[in-house]
Amino acid sequence: GFAKVDHHRKKRQGFPEVIYGEGKTAEQILLIINSIRSNHNDVLVTRITKEKAEYILQEYPEFFYHELAQILFWKEDPKADSFKGYIAIVCAGTSDLKVAEEAAVTAEALGCNVRRIYDVGVAGIHRLFDNIEEIQNATVSVVVAGMEGALPSVVGGLVSHPIMAVPTSIGYGANFNGLSALLTMLNSCASGISVVNIDNGFGAAYNAALIYRI
Amino acid sequence: GFAKVDHHRKKRQGFPEVIYGEGKTAEQILLIINSIRSNHNDVLVTRITKEKAEYILQEYPEFFYHELAQILFWKEDPKADSFKGYIAIVCAGTSDLKVAEEAAVTAEALGCNVRRIYDVGVAGIHRLFDNIEEIQNATVSVVVAGMEGALPSVVGGLVSHPIMAVPTSIGYGANFNGLSALLTMLNSCASGISVVNIDNGFGAAYNAALIYRI
Amino acid sequence: GFAKVDHHRKKRQGFPEVIYGEGKTAEQILLIINSIRSNHNDVLVTRITKEKAEYILQEYPEFFYHELAQILFWKEDPKADSFKGYIAIVCAGTSDLKVAEEAAVTAEALGCNVRRIYDVGVAGIHRLFDNIEEIQNATVSVVVAGMEGALPSVVGGLVSHPIMAVPTSIGYGANFNGLSALLTMLNSCASGISVVNIDNGFGAAYNAALIYRI
Amino acid sequence: GFAKVDHHRKKRQGFPEVIYGEGKTAEQILLIINSIRSNHNDVLVTRITKEKAEYILQEYPEFFYHELAQILFWKEDPKADSFKGYIAIVCAGTSDLKVAEEAAVTAEALGCNVRRIYDVGVAGIHRLFDNIEEIQNATVSVVVAGMEGALPSVVGGLVSHPIMAVPTSIGYGANFNGLSALLTMLNSCASGISVVNIDNGFGAAYNAALIYRI
Amino acid sequence: GFAKVDHHRKKRQGFPEVIYGEGKTAEQILLIINSIRSNHNDVLVTRITKEKAEYILQEYPEFFYHELAQILFWKEDPKADSFKGYIAIVCAGTSDLKVAEEAAVTAEALGCNVRRIYDVGVAGIHRLFDNIEEIQNATVSVVVAGMEGALPSVVGGLVSHPIMAVPTSIGYGANFNGLSALLTMLNSCASGISVVNIDNGFGAAYNAALIYRI
Amino acid sequence: GFAKVDHHRKKRQGFPEVIYGEGKTAEQILLIINSIRSNHNDVLVTRITKEKAEYILQEYPEFFYHELAQILFWKEDPKADSFKGYIAIVCAGTSDLKVAEEAAVTAEALGCNVRRIYDVGVAGIHRLFDNIEEIQNATVSVVVAGMEGALPSVVGGLVSHPIMAVPTSIGYGANFNGLSALLTMLNSCASGISVVNIDNGFGAAYNAALIYRI
Amino acid sequence: GFAKVDHHRKKRQGFPEVIYGEGKTAEQILLIINSIRSNHNDVLVTRITKEKAEYILQEYPEFFYHELAQILFWKEDPKADSFKGYIAIVCAGTSDLKVAEEAAVTAEALGCNVRRIYDVGVAGIHRLFDNIEEIQNATVSVVVAGMEGALPSVVGGLVSHPIMAVPTSIGYGANFNGLSALLTMLNSCASGISVVNIDNGFGAAYNAALIYRI
Amino acid sequence: GFAKVDHHRKKRQGFPEVIYGEGKTAEQILLIINSIRSNHNDVLVTRITKEKAEYILQEYPEFFYHELAQILFWKEDPKADSFKGYIAIVCAGTSDLKVAEEAAVTAEALGCNVRRIYDVGVAGIHRLFDNIEEIQNATVSVVVAGMEGALPSVVGGLVSHPIMAVPTSIGYGANFNGLSALLTMLNSCASGISVVNIDNGFGAAYNAALIYRI
Ligand SMILES: Nc1ncnc2c1ncn2[C@@H]1O[C@H](COP(=O)(O)O)[C@@H](O)[C@H]1O
Ligand SMILES: Nc1ncnc2c1ncn2[C@@H]1O[C@H](COP(=O)(O)O)[C@@H](O)[C@H]1O
Ligand SMILES: Nc1ncnc2c1ncn2[C@@H]1O[C@H](COP(=O)(O)O)[C@@H](O)[C@H]1O
Ligand SMILES: Nc1ncnc2c1ncn2[C@@H]1O[C@H](COP(=O)(O)O)[C@@H](O)[C@H]1O
Ligand SMILES: [Mg+2]
Ligand SMILES: [Mg+2]
Ligand SMILES: [Mg+2]
Ligand SMILES: [Mg+2]
Ligand SMILES: [Mg+2]
Ligand SMILES: [Mg+2]
Ligand SMILES: [Mg+2]
Ligand SMILES: [Mg+2]
Repeated sequence: GFAKVDHHRKKRQGFPEVIYGEGKTAEQILLIINSIRSNHNDVLVTRITKEKAEYILQEYPEFFYHELAQILFWKEDPKADSFKGYIAIVCAGTSDLKVAEEAAVTAEALGCNVRRIYDVGVAGIHRLFDNIEEIQNATVSVVVAGMEGALPSVVGGLVSHPIMAVPTSIGYGANFNGLSALLTMLNSCASGISVVNIDNGFGAAYNAALIYRI
Repeated sequence: GFAKVDHHRKKRQGFPEVIYGEGKTAEQILLIINSIRSNHNDVLVTRITKEKAEYILQEYPEFFYHELAQILFWKEDPKADSFKGYIAIVCAGTSDLKVAEEAAVTAEALGCNVRRIYDVGVAGIHRLFDNIEEIQNATVSVVVAGMEGALPSVVGGLVSHPIMAVPTSIGYGANFNGLSALLTMLNSCASGISVVNIDNGFGAAYNAALIYRI
Repeated sequence: GFAKVDHHRKKRQGFPEVIYGEGKTAEQILLIINSIRSNHNDVLVTRITKEKAEYILQEYPEFFYHELAQILFWKEDPKADSFKGYIAIVCAGTSDLKVAEEAAVTAEALGCNVRRIYDVGVAGIHRLFDNIEEIQNATVSVVVAGMEGALPSVVGGLVSHPIMAVPTSIGYGANFNGLSALLTMLNSCASGISVVNIDNGFGAAYNAALIYRI
Repeated sequence: GFAKVDHHRKKRQGFPEVIYGEGKTAEQILLIINSIRSNHNDVLVTRITKEKAEYILQEYPEFFYHELAQILFWKEDPKADSFKGYIAIVCAGTSDLKVAEEAAVTAEALGCNVRRIYDVGVAGIHRLFDNIEEIQNATVSVVVAGMEGALPSVVGGLVSHPIMAVPTSIGYGANFNGLSALLTMLNSCASGISVVNIDNGFGAAYNAALIYRI
Repeated sequence: GFAKVDHHRKKRQGFPEVIYGEGKTAEQILLIINSIRSNHNDVLVTRITKEKAEYILQEYPEFFYHELAQILFWKEDPKADSFKGYIAIVCAGTSDLKVAEEAAVTAEALGCNVRRIYDVGVAGIHRLFDNIEEIQNATVSVVVAGMEGALPSVVGGLVSHPIMAVPTSIGYGANFNGLSALLTMLNSCASGISVVNIDNGFGAAYNAALIYRI
Repeated sequence: GFAKVDHHRKKRQGFPEVIYGEGKTAEQILLIINSIRSNHNDVLVTRITKEKAEYILQEYPEFFYHELAQILFWKEDPKADSFKGYIAIVCAGTSDLKVAEEAAVTAEALGCNVRRIYDVGVAGIHRLFDNIEEIQNATVSVVVAGMEGALPSVVGGLVSHPIMAVPTSIGYGANFNGLSALLTMLNSCASGISVVNIDNGFGAAYNAALIYRI
Repeated sequence: GFAKVDHHRKKRQGFPEVIYGEGKTAEQILLIINSIRSNHNDVLVTRITKEKAEYILQEYPEFFYHELAQILFWKEDPKADSFKGYIAIVCAGTSDLKVAEEAAVTAEALGCNVRRIYDVGVAGIHRLFDNIEEIQNATVSVVVAGMEGALPSVVGGLVSHPIMAVPTSIGYGANFNGLSALLTMLNSCASGISVVNIDNGFGAAYNAALIYRI
Repeated sequence: GFAKVDHHRKKRQGFPEVIYGEGKTAEQILLIINSIRSNHNDVLVTRITKEKAEYILQEYPEFFYHELAQILFWKEDPKADSFKGYIAIVCAGTSDLKVAEEAAVTAEALGCNVRRIYDVGVAGIHRLFDNIEEIQNATVSVVVAGMEGALPSVVGGLVSHPIMAVPTSIGYGANFNGLSALLTMLNSCASGISVVNIDNGFGAAYNAALIYRI
């Protein structure tokens, strides 16, 4: 076929190959899912539109689709994982919801407990302080922010666990599609912050899940 | 001569022409000062090294040189201005001192009262909160920050006066000589922030002085 | 809910939280407005299309929508403010009207007197000189320009009050969506100029209003 | 003084404030160390040249200086931590040694066990496979690479723990001082990778230590 | 006419002028084809959509259109070339198929034998090793990769023939439309790699064909 | 009105204000034309689509619209100018036709004789040499090229008159919307070349007309 | 030898090959001069330091060296040209003198009359108006400006002859070594402006001389 | 030791590991050479200064150092290779000599016949035509050019063998350290051109040698 699915990944990395839905047709995604399912692996598709998801759901009605997060997934045994602790998914503004949900649903699909602390950006920093304990008690945080992307720096100075910072492409003008937030996070003077690609909620949650499972 | 000094500026703008010292020889600076002095104007030279300043001070021993700020100035009547209120000069880290002092000394040379609140960056945000009232009570603030440049956003959310944000070139790697902090400040989701060029402490203070004098 | 409205902002900053309409659905905007109104705060929504505005106006027919400026607002007491002086909103070309109007309507919504001086760009500089006195007599100016963005530098050399410079994304080729005008304004050799994000008429007007109210 | 040391950080974050030596004079560093020591905290200085370190060592001869890593540190109780497991510090070429050592020595200063796997870049990938088990058995890896920065992607596909990727500024031409490696790492199609600033060996090790201590 | 077809190119370069279809109307393409055919030359059109191709096929039903590759071509004597050896077309992910097929079909149109080794990216490097001998036995390879573009570096370290590396614009965020993969390939620490423009499958195959025919 | 037409420009610069059509509605363009016509000036509108032009032509059926060039103009006395010599409009590929025609029609509208030498790019340089005398005999040349933009350098080495180089946004990948050709032309090692904005056929022709009229 | 001097250029282009001194040793420059002189051609060397020039002057004491302009030249018949009219060399600030002089001396070496109008930047625009007639009466102008580079736009709106705009690398921060001024000039909304490379006083003067001689 | 020399590379790739001298001390280079020599492999060091080379030559006086190319090498059997044909090393200007020689000496060290055709840039294109046959008869060409980097496009249109294009960092202003030439070459409309990193004469020659040996 056109694709060489990495069936071995679950053994090598603890999670099966994740399907990146953007740029693939619904038919291509279905073929890859079939191949993954034939190996008795769980399925996780990111960046998949409602239309493509509905095509897959006809074949696999038991799958779960989350529209805001653009994620489709299926877990053989949804109760398999019972870790203590949780991942805090924090975001700066309501405009960052989509990316934050990509992170939150990915983490849930990977078997993690998740707490959402949204719209606590630095322009009204008291909102962050009202919720800081819930963040501090997490095992690891994913912090999502667009525009100037300052939130991870502030959170980074207040918690003692690792932070996965996600710049979003939200903004305009000299935001340059997320470059501004990306540079902010890479240059953070707070310690304990590492960065993933712009809008990559999936990647941040995946990393957080690896840490959560240690 | 090689230069056309703008003697008319004091009348037009309230301050005489300021001399930008970088790239000019000590001799050139002296000639311009002579021309300004012959018009009975005050003198302000920025970005002037100790060596060049000493050359000028031989001729004009009454001038005042501030080495960290790299500023040389002279005011006919230092007590002339008696405004109430003050400009808060805030900076994020000890590495930003040079630019913060360029701002502070410029503001003083322009006849403003100044309060310095230094090393209160977001990595240890309690230091900002310990000093927030002094900042809130200012007429206008100059906020200086390098690396990710998040400080103006946080201050911007806590005060109700205008903020002049100054990105500094302090940092390394993906800081790209201040580009990171510059973009952060331009994209701030807090309102009330406007931005000057990288390391332009002078420009921020000049703007702040215009506002202070209203 | 999905949003934590910053009800405290009016007390902290003098103006309530402004709603950034881009990327939000009409329903989301309505929910945030309801929350703000329940706190007896004034409402200001920027970057809101006619379609979304009409959805809101069904619920709140007393609100005012300005299409060119893409602004929707409502003031409890429109006559509340009676400041003397005015803000000059200056723009270079007819192509910059949209951004200039975002600034002008924002300033009016924030209770300021406004004078519009439009289409006075440097390619025909006599048009600027014909109107320079009206600009010089303002308390503060917002100067909007696209393409090469030279207008704030020229105005900056002719007035003695602070200028908020707004680069617009108008232009083509090496304009790079406003980058050209942004860099021009940041590097201005005239003093008294500070800069906001590309196309950010709102931000410039907000800053100008803070200065105007001093 | 000129600095507001963040004495509270140890309590808040588990580690005391780390001193960034670049751009500070030896005297400034000494003053900050005195302040930290007066609070009975451990000391860690990064980016400190031999000359500056020797100045400090006259006062504190018990401190330890690592020249290649440009790190000076002192731990009250070097045996305090006894964690199981180790952090793998992996680097691509001999040119990346400096950054790799900044990471390795930082991790040791923070009480972690460290294993160094150096010069295993993708141009001769068998060198990586000869050492892959030692990497796979680590709790967390720091992977350092310059030029095209491909190593973290390859390692990321072979291990099941989190990877801190560090781009270095090693290279020439279209490397653009590390931008090439930075973008490579941010865009990695392998999962489990997050990125820190160019040449930021310290940051990667700090993050790795946070994960290691979970 | 509007175009000066380079009829002489076949003699000068071994292949006739190739028509770049993007930005040309179907009518313009037809006129150029007529001109080329009147000189008894073979025809190769790249970047041609199905709609435009169908317009040409009405006139020249004997032409061959490959939709995924967006290529239309016709060879007077398809069996003319009988070289030994083959060109390996290697790609990293299923998202890179389009560019890989542009390369593969171009090479075939230019009379080369081609072997396709697809979806063998570094995130699951065993897939590359399963196919490495087929790559090593090629005369020359075209290696196509998006996102971080690391595949050519790894292949470059394992083969002893020249590699044409093709960065693709596949990815998001800090991928910057292929810039990330382009820089990776230009900075490769493996030898034997040269690079063509982003998404330029045609150019890579053309170069490979020149080498193949030596 | 919303616009301050620069009626004085004809006297100051020899040509009346040119209307930049992009971003203006047909109604706005009509209002500006009315204002210009009321001053008995000639009319030139660039970047105007067929739809907008047809709206104007209803009112002014005597105007001339050139669709490929996207130009609408009217000259009181089309025979007014009778200069000797001509402007050579040279372009590299058929993809550059649109910009070349913007230049050619602008020059004609400004009363210049024009000769078109199209599709003579460096990939088949004999086409240039076949036409070099016609170029050499021009008073001034406009040379238009996309992709790598090498044509002005080659022409610049072969003629003794000034060249206006126009980079076009034609190309893909690392062309970055004309940046590649722009940089090529700015860095030309041939003398006698100056550059206008990407795709700015109008600007190049305007400059050429100024030279032509000397 | 290592160089193929283009002896034919004088016939082809009106001026002999100009020697670009940067990156060449004094010995290499001497060898090229010898070769040019053996063909009875005039000599022009740009970007040549005092040290290198003195080495050449030992051999050719009749040559003329201009230190500020970094130009060395010799003309067989200095009175050969007697054109009417002059080139105006205009610059914005005293920091642009070096580039302006490179232009002025080049133009003189090419046999043109030159008038210098220096330090008339837009921050004090009355200085420009005091000198505008001298500029308006020129055949062609070279306008040099650093920082935001707004001067050519203003001059462009006031004269009816062609302008060669030269961005300089003077400035700091977001000036990015002249990029700011370069973009400003490329995007000028004034007509009649074309642009040469950053700091390329020579190129502007060469182009101006071509126009001057028409 | 600090390095893992890739002794296996000769078998895998036909050439032993090449030592990149930049950023390594003379001692480090010597240790790596000892390790390579102990395996009876040939030695090639690039980017090695005279000082470092002299240190190595004390130990290995039989090695050959080429200063302009900054290359040190030793071949067990210099006569081992006797291929027919040659590699043409073409460069645009005398400023590109260093990079051209890095390519030429590398190719010779790898056992290839080399012909140098230097200083034939497009500003005086007749110099290229005077030498075109020697280039056309080569098996493969390396074409080196700085500034606008147009030479490979012109050569590419005139030969029927593959071209390795090398952008150099020679130039100033908007050259941006070779970016201009790099983009030119990547966007070439001539076919048969592939590109290596800026100033990477070694890489181009290595690739050319692989092709030459086919
Ligand atoms: N035009 C605008 N540009 C930038 N920020 C804005 C604008 N309008 C409103 N804002 C602020 O941006 C923030 C948006 O947060 P959110 O809507 O939760 O994503 C709020 O703090 C707003 O007050
Ligand atoms: N193609 C073009 N490119 C650049 N400027 C132009 C063009 N066509 C007209 N202009 C000028 O651009 C300015 C546009 O100003 P406005 O139309 O008021 O935004 C006017 O001075 C026009 O003369
Ligand atoms: N949101 C995402 N971002 C980046 N990579 C992803 C994402 N989702 C999946 N991937 C990985 O990207 C690779 C895509 O390869 P392919 O689908 O063959 O082009 C696979 O290894 C996926 O596991
Ligand atoms: N995919 C491609 N990429 C780059 N150049 C191409 C491609 N396909 C064709 N060309 C060449 O690009 C040039 C286009 O010139 P024109 O079509 O006249 O604008 C011709 O020399 C073509 O042979
Ligand atoms: Mg919000
Ligand atoms: Mg500090
Ligand atoms: Mg106008
Ligand atoms: Mg090595
Ligand atoms: Mg795949
Ligand atoms: Mg063509
Ligand atoms: Mg001056
Ligand atoms: Mg030469």
